[in-house]
Amino acid sequence: MTRLLLRGGEVITSNERYLADLLIVDGTIEAIGRPGQWGVDDADETVDADGCLLLPGGVDTHTHLEYVVASGKTRTADDFESGTIAAACGGTTTIVDFVRPPQGVGVYDAFQQRRAAAAASCVVDFGFHPIVPASAGDDDSFDQLVRLAREEGATSWKFFMAYPGSMVDDDVLIRGFRLAREHGVLPMVHAENGHMVADAIASLIEDERFEEHNHLFGHPASAEQEAVNRAIMLAEHAESPLFIVHVSASDAAEEIARHQARGVEVMAETCPQYLVTGYEDYRDLGFGAAGYICSPPIRERANQERLWRAVEQGTIATIGTDHAAFTLAQPEGLPPQKAVGRGHFPSVPNGVPGVEERLMVMYETGVMSGRLSIHEFVDLTATRPAQLFGLAPRKGSIAPGADADIVVWDPKASRTLGVDTLHSRSDYSLYEGMTVSGSPRLVFSRGELIARDGEPVEPRPGRGEYLPRQRFGTAASGWRAAHAAG
Amino acid sequence: MTRLLLRGGEVITSNERYLADLLIVDGTIEAIGRPGQWGVDDADETVDADGCLLLPGGVDTHTHLEYVVASGKTRTADDFESGTIAAACGGTTTIVDFVRPPQGVGVYDAFQQRRAAAAASCVVDFGFHPIVPASAGDDDSFDQLVRLAREEGATSWKFFMAYPGSMVDDDVLIRGFRLAREHGVLPMVHAENGHMVADAIASLIEDERFEEHNHLFGHPASAEQEAVNRAIMLAEHAESPLFIVHVSASDAAEEIARHQARGVEVMAETCPQYLVTGYEDYRDLGFGAAGYICSPPIRERANQERLWRAVEQGTIATIGTDHAAFTLAQPEGLPPQKAVGRGHFPSVPNGVPGVEERLMVMYETGVMSGRLSIHEFVDLTATRPAQLFGLAPRKGSIAPGADADIVVWDPKASRTLGVDTLHSRSDYSLYEGMTVSGSPRLVFSRGELIARDGEPVEPRPGRGEYLPRQRFGTAASGWRAAHAAG
Amino acid sequence: MTRLLLRGGEVITSNERYLADLLIVDGTIEAIGRPGQWGVDDADETVDADGCLLLPGGVDTHTHLEYVVASGKTRTADDFESGTIAAACGGTTTIVDFVRPPQGVGVYDAFQQRRAAAAASCVVDFGFHPIVPASAGDDDSFDQLVRLAREEGATSWKFFMAYPGSMVDDDVLIRGFRLAREHGVLPMVHAENGHMVADAIASLIEDERFEEHNHLFGHPASAEQEAVNRAIMLAEHAESPLFIVHVSASDAAEEIARHQARGVEVMAETCPQYLVTGYEDYRDLGFGAAGYICSPPIRERANQERLWRAVEQGTIATIGTDHAAFTLAQPEGLPPQKAVGRGHFPSVPNGVPGVEERLMVMYETGVMSGRLSIHEFVDLTATRPAQLFGLAPRKGSIAPGADADIVVWDPKASRTLGVDTLHSRSDYSLYEGMTVSGSPRLVFSRGELIARDGEPVEPRPGRGEYLPRQRFGTAASGWRAAHAAG
Amino acid sequence: MTRLLLRGGEVITSNERYLADLLIVDGTIEAIGRPGQWGVDDADETVDADGCLLLPGGVDTHTHLEYVVASGKTRTADDFESGTIAAACGGTTTIVDFVRPPQGVGVYDAFQQRRAAAAASCVVDFGFHPIVPASAGDDDSFDQLVRLAREEGATSWKFFMAYPGSMVDDDVLIRGFRLAREHGVLPMVHAENGHMVADAIASLIEDERFEEHNHLFGHPASAEQEAVNRAIMLAEHAESPLFIVHVSASDAAEEIARHQARGVEVMAETCPQYLVTGYEDYRDLGFGAAGYICSPPIRERANQERLWRAVEQGTIATIGTDHAAFTLAQPEGLPPQKAVGRGHFPSVPNGVPGVEERLMVMYETGVMSGRLSIHEFVDLTATRPAQLFGLAPRKGSIAPGADADIVVWDPKASRTLGVDTLHSRSDYSLYEGMTVSGSPRLVFSRGELIARDGEPVEPRPGRGEYLPRQRFGTAASGWRAAHAAG
Repeated sequence: MTRLLLRGGEVITSNERYLADLLIVDGTIEAIGRPGQWGVDDADETVDADGCLLLPGGVDTHTHLEYVVASGKTRTADDFESGTIAAACGGTTTIVDFVRPPQGVGVYDAFQQRRAAAAASCVVDFGFHPIVPASAGDDDSFDQLVRLAREEGATSWKFFMAYPGSMVDDDVLIRGFRLAREHGVLPMVHAENGHMVADAIASLIEDERFEEHNHLFGHPASAEQEAVNRAIMLAEHAESPLFIVHVSASDAAEEIARHQARGVEVMAETCPQYLVTGYEDYRDLGFGAAGYICSPPIRERANQERLWRAVEQGTIATIGTDHAAFTLAQPEGLPPQKAVGRGHFPSVPNGVPGVEERLMVMYETGVMSGRLSIHEFVDLTATRPAQLFGLAPRKGSIAPGADADIVVWDPKASRTLGVDTLHSRSDYSLYEGMTVSGSPRLVFSRGELIARDGEPVEPRPGRGEYLPRQRFGTAASGWRAAHAAG
Repeated sequence: MTRLLLRGGEVITSNERYLADLLIVDGTIEAIGRPGQWGVDDADETVDADGCLLLPGGVDTHTHLEYVVASGKTRTADDFESGTIAAACGGTTTIVDFVRPPQGVGVYDAFQQRRAAAAASCVVDFGFHPIVPASAGDDDSFDQLVRLAREEGATSWKFFMAYPGSMVDDDVLIRGFRLAREHGVLPMVHAENGHMVADAIASLIEDERFEEHNHLFGHPASAEQEAVNRAIMLAEHAESPLFIVHVSASDAAEEIARHQARGVEVMAETCPQYLVTGYEDYRDLGFGAAGYICSPPIRERANQERLWRAVEQGTIATIGTDHAAFTLAQPEGLPPQKAVGRGHFPSVPNGVPGVEERLMVMYETGVMSGRLSIHEFVDLTATRPAQLFGLAPRKGSIAPGADADIVVWDPKASRTLGVDTLHSRSDYSLYEGMTVSGSPRLVFSRGELIARDGEPVEPRPGRGEYLPRQRFGTAASGWRAAHAAG
Repeated sequence: MTRLLLRGGEVITSNERYLADLLIVDGTIEAIGRPGQWGVDDADETVDADGCLLLPGGVDTHTHLEYVVASGKTRTADDFESGTIAAACGGTTTIVDFVRPPQGVGVYDAFQQRRAAAAASCVVDFGFHPIVPASAGDDDSFDQLVRLAREEGATSWKFFMAYPGSMVDDDVLIRGFRLAREHGVLPMVHAENGHMVADAIASLIEDERFEEHNHLFGHPASAEQEAVNRAIMLAEHAESPLFIVHVSASDAAEEIARHQARGVEVMAETCPQYLVTGYEDYRDLGFGAAGYICSPPIRERANQERLWRAVEQGTIATIGTDHAAFTLAQPEGLPPQKAVGRGHFPSVPNGVPGVEERLMVMYETGVMSGRLSIHEFVDLTATRPAQLFGLAPRKGSIAPGADADIVVWDPKASRTLGVDTLHSRSDYSLYEGMTVSGSPRLVFSRGELIARDGEPVEPRPGRGEYLPRQRFGTAASGWRAAHAAG
Repeated sequence: MTRLLLRGGEVITSNERYLADLLIVDGTIEAIGRPGQWGVDDADETVDADGCLLLPGGVDTHTHLEYVVASGKTRTADDFESGTIAAACGGTTTIVDFVRPPQGVGVYDAFQQRRAAAAASCVVDFGFHPIVPASAGDDDSFDQLVRLAREEGATSWKFFMAYPGSMVDDDVLIRGFRLAREHGVLPMVHAENGHMVADAIASLIEDERFEEHNHLFGHPASAEQEAVNRAIMLAEHAESPLFIVHVSASDAAEEIARHQARGVEVMAETCPQYLVTGYEDYRDLGFGAAGYICSPPIRERANQERLWRAVEQGTIATIGTDHAAFTLAQPEGLPPQKAVGRGHFPSVPNGVPGVEERLMVMYETGVMSGRLSIHEFVDLTATRPAQLFGLAPRKGSIAPGADADIVVWDPKASRTLGVDTLHSRSDYSLYEGMTVSGSPRLVFSRGELIARDGEPVEPRPGRGEYLPRQRFGTAASGWRAAHAAG
């Protein structure tokens, strides 16, 4: 039995703050008391957090590590090890990644393979969202998905409404949503109308507008808005809750808000890149714009204010990263990275890094700017993702019985972000040069110190544990009783 | 030093739940630990809460005890003692009442007098919202109000937009809101357009429609909607936050929602009577309808569903009661009660009881029905009222350092509500005969047991303490940093 | 040269009214003058319209006469002759019907065949909307459609978003809308999400809910709302105007309104059956409910008030009938009618009669009820359909140079509608027994009297002429100049 | 009997267009026929309109000629003669001006005096809207107003919601609206919240921001939005229709739209200055900004696009001018003009000229830009103002029986606007230097040619006739039958 005393900090939860000492036993929060409650003799180790905030470890439910893209032609630069080290250094102690079955492999087997790979390499705890194959309408994929939900606690499924090879049509969505509802699974959608996107890209190609920045025009906001509306109405038809990932267009966010106002159970995520960077940042960068290519795209700055509003008003429930890191330069030994599409945006691998920067960037642009209270910050980046994706009460919370995933956050530790001090294998950061006002001094995962001052502490690949997740709508999720029955 | 151990319960906060034991020292929560953390030897007294929920004590920021009505012609049936005993028995451990200066008395003096009276009689902790006199545009009332905010922590002011003798016009609102902003005060409005109400009542009188139930038609929903919109726009003009009390009309709630969606800082309260009872309940009661007369009125049942929606969607921040109890029968020794207006609705004193029923009714109709999560219930009835009105972190929270105001809630204790087992001096309850599924087994105020199974435990009038309140927008309020500067 | 003098009436246009005499020469309106302007000697024939209103002949742009259903299994009861006689008797002097290419026939050839059949039989003037085949994404249908627009003035195309064998997916819509824009064609959609409809019907079948009235539940309002929203966004993407036929769900109408408010060029039609009859009318009729089966379905009465609102507010531009008459009883010599689906709603042919009742029912329920001005009535039933579908200035208007299609409307001629006095071959009317307050006394088509007091006057099949129609957005359409360039 | 033949033109009404010749007898339109219908022998005079459009003469229901401002300190530069000559030259053949009773004079007497003055000087036909005095709540003004409605056909009353000395409070509005409803009067409001305006101006004065352009900030858009919403809700409460003059803020227009969508009978006007000029035009003009000072103010250009949208979508019913001309330079013999407030915006007389430019500016910026169809242009500037204010069927229309107020509009006559060729006594035009693409070649008032190519033709002061107006909601107004009963 190991006893760790964390004292002198101020606990910040999604709705409260108080000065308190924490007693951690064998990686679990044992007790929380007024300052001075326990002395050094009560613990094997005492850590001082004076002047710092104690935040629940970040939960990023949207990463792509060691990830082979849909075409099969390349793989992200970060593997499970480098990606989770980056996460840890940025204060994120839980990730939920995706399983996309390669051609010819069933989703159940693909899941097991990927889980084994992650278990061997991750330095923080992890889970997976299985992706519903495009073939699901015609094969036994849904049976496998149900089995994964039941046996492995993989209680969220991802559906694509766009992209050749990934896109499912409305009847697969209806059927999938209904099955999700039956099995306590939270369905997630990548919401872009694939036909509109394909049409827009075809127009650009016809006009020979190949420069990297044109990616934006291949993914019109209306394609996102339309798909968001449709997904919501299909989910309502199937009586299922719904989670919309990486909302980028403010029009899409407003579509979500109007349905929420009717009482529909739809929740959504956005990502720092959509709130903080804009088209104007990459329009004139030439090939550098490739570093901003992700889908849905990073839109015009005029879009940001209304997207922030959606975050402030609670339309958006979580902030993930969609971390899918590629390098701009082509390193030896890696499959083709961003450079493969130089001068031809449709060939550029989609994705941006960000798992390490997430908390710092959101604290700076959200909390320090006055847009968000610190509680909303914690809620968006840790508590709600944990609750919605079945990780509560272990994750996302500072409470007796929870895993001691704790970030000792120094609100005064100014730092300038840059790729030279970040840990992703990407060779650029969207936030290069941004000075942030707070950062993680210490990061604990189940009571174990894994990062200090932005650097990993003796990282042990494989220490991260797989997280089976609860059904959506159970008591721990904070959801209404009506949903707990689901 | 008194140590109380409360063990075996499940803590419910506004966003989390966990099994925990609580150690309470001298009325303050000292530490919270995993079950079994402490033994009976660690405490002077041990209370068992097995199978129960531990909720922060209820905070009702809208009561009228020992309250002389605007006309000066009568007084509520409940005084500070009976009213706070009722509160305590229902699980409410903090009230915020009002100070309306009588004719010829300044608001500062009126405040001091009323505070002294309350201090002598209350059995739970209390605060006051001063009411802005109708004369404030012309005299030094605002100076006195600012003094009360600074010296006494009376950091909320109530404005009336209706009623002869109380109503202020738009320039007083503008001026008052701007002063409120400067001094960290949260302005509250009774939002009905007084001219529309007067006109509607005049029409009823002209038509000789005097029966009690006609009160509804004297207070059209549009009068409430108009005033809500106007108050919000005036507050925005004055760059002030705003709190709208007792929202009754769903149209008014939707007005609030549309301005919130624009990012305006407007918050609102509704009351159980508007969510749970309807015009159809009293239309045919004859004089019995007098028991439902309050303003704004209890509206048609068709209004309720949309009002509930506003609660569910977060448009409404708090649930208060507007407890202003009058008896139907005229007891000896009391000033005129409801009966004085028999057969003539404009003469019936306005107000309904409910301070004791609040938590039970909201738990039954909100949580048990699946409309609200238990966390939303806690937030609406305790955490948010405490935060918005400057009572956090002492009240509204179960956390180290907070007052040990705790309700041991038995979720399985079925009970039928009725005036014979309630403690208000009113002789009726709007919820007579309603069977509820949960109720307070034990109620602690600063660690002292003040009620058990719905009955007071050795009530000591005067044990309640006056609560100076923090400025609106300080860190403890959970509000965004931008507002903390106010 | 034949000169007809129509005198003593009051001309009603879509925005004006005045007492005037009309001089008609060779079927065209020659001049309009103050009463008494011309004497009997100025004309070959003089008709007296004292006390009557002179309305432009009705234009019904949504009929299905002599129409083989999609499955090929049956045909409507009305052929071009009976259907246009019914139209004439009801005051409708122009119809636009549809061309659905049978299996194996190209749309160009199908159009020519159907035009020839109509030209041989119609007693009023007619045009056709070609239907875009489901195969259009893969064959040369669009080339044929463009040819029809250019050569035959068939400047509107109908797309189906539902029904096996008819439904096109989003990329056909995008491509078709863009072609429509290029060629001055107004695209029309049947807007229901086919996947949602199929799913809803499958659920009913699984539950063995086969009774006729269940048709309603197979076509949820949300399926209509979703498709309406999607069609609008796809049209906007393709920079095309859009016309939505037979809006039935008020939620769908509100979707249209919100996009119109953004400035999107979307126009819509509804039909009398959606405004005047409701589910409650057929729920308990047993097989009689088959007479109400059409798609989208006739919805709950609660839907009507909001649909009327959409008509009153101008969200809805035209009132058509979707006249597709089938008999309830199975007559000899006709292919299977409604009875073929007795006790099994999915087998009942879809469609209701109404081409004759349209003007009378809308005058009664719209004008007489105070919902519509008489000008709005004229606009919805004659002027706007003519303008939007390229029939102006010949049709829809009482003005010099226009075809003398004129209804002498007796606003005081009360009449009780019933199948025994109507002229469709259907054996029932949705409006059986409804007493209406106005009806057509005389109906002229190009100056020729074709109906009197609701009975045809020497009907000559084949007198009706094919109407090539102008491109959408030309000056005569009343549309903004910006669109005239299309 | 004088017969005038106007031939070769194309008639444009609010919804139709056709080539036609017009026969005009004694100032009234006698007949309209296909071209060539009549020869020169049929008329005493024949006028050729080849290549021109025939528009109904413009109706400007918002002018202030020979107008003493509220303070009594000055008078507009234009008197009835110069103002109506300007109107005539610009194609406007009807004006409706205002009667504001001077101190100590009842509104009835003031009306008669002003009518007499106008009758002696006007060159086009005219009517008056009486202004409801601020004292109306306490004296017999409403009796006089009712008398004016009944006896003089002054069937519209203007209410001010702002300005010391003019502003009425909500109970006068309620009472006035209800009386208006009873007497077939259309109530009009100047909708700005007077308290917000006063507060905003006081803040500017406190900050010593006196420069002329600051006028904008003294009239915040929110003050207009609030008052618009309130006026609508009060009118709905009183069951009265409502007309909102000179809508300037797009937020106010959207408020109107949302209530219209609920079915409320609210109509609105805007003016060319709000659509075409912007704050950016005068911000840097120094004293020149005084020429743009009017209330509500000319707002930021960003406001215009949404205001245009409101015009395009039909939220706005009419385009008036609020013509209240003052000179920038101070001419001898005139009371103080704009210069009196040099360097002190609150002292600048409010008002801008525009009665002559109205049709040309709206044709150029509306029709030529593609924002409006030519029918919408006619509707906004002639037909609807005539219908709503009880001038139909005499005015606003080209139809048999109507007054022969006709503008022969040359759509190709390019012209550059400028004060040297305009006829107001103002010494500037807001549209100085704007080149417009169409202009009035000939202007007829009751068959008499009063202007040619922008110059008056032998103007005869006093030829203009007073126009008693019909009750609101009569058949001629084109309004729904439900309102005709009013």
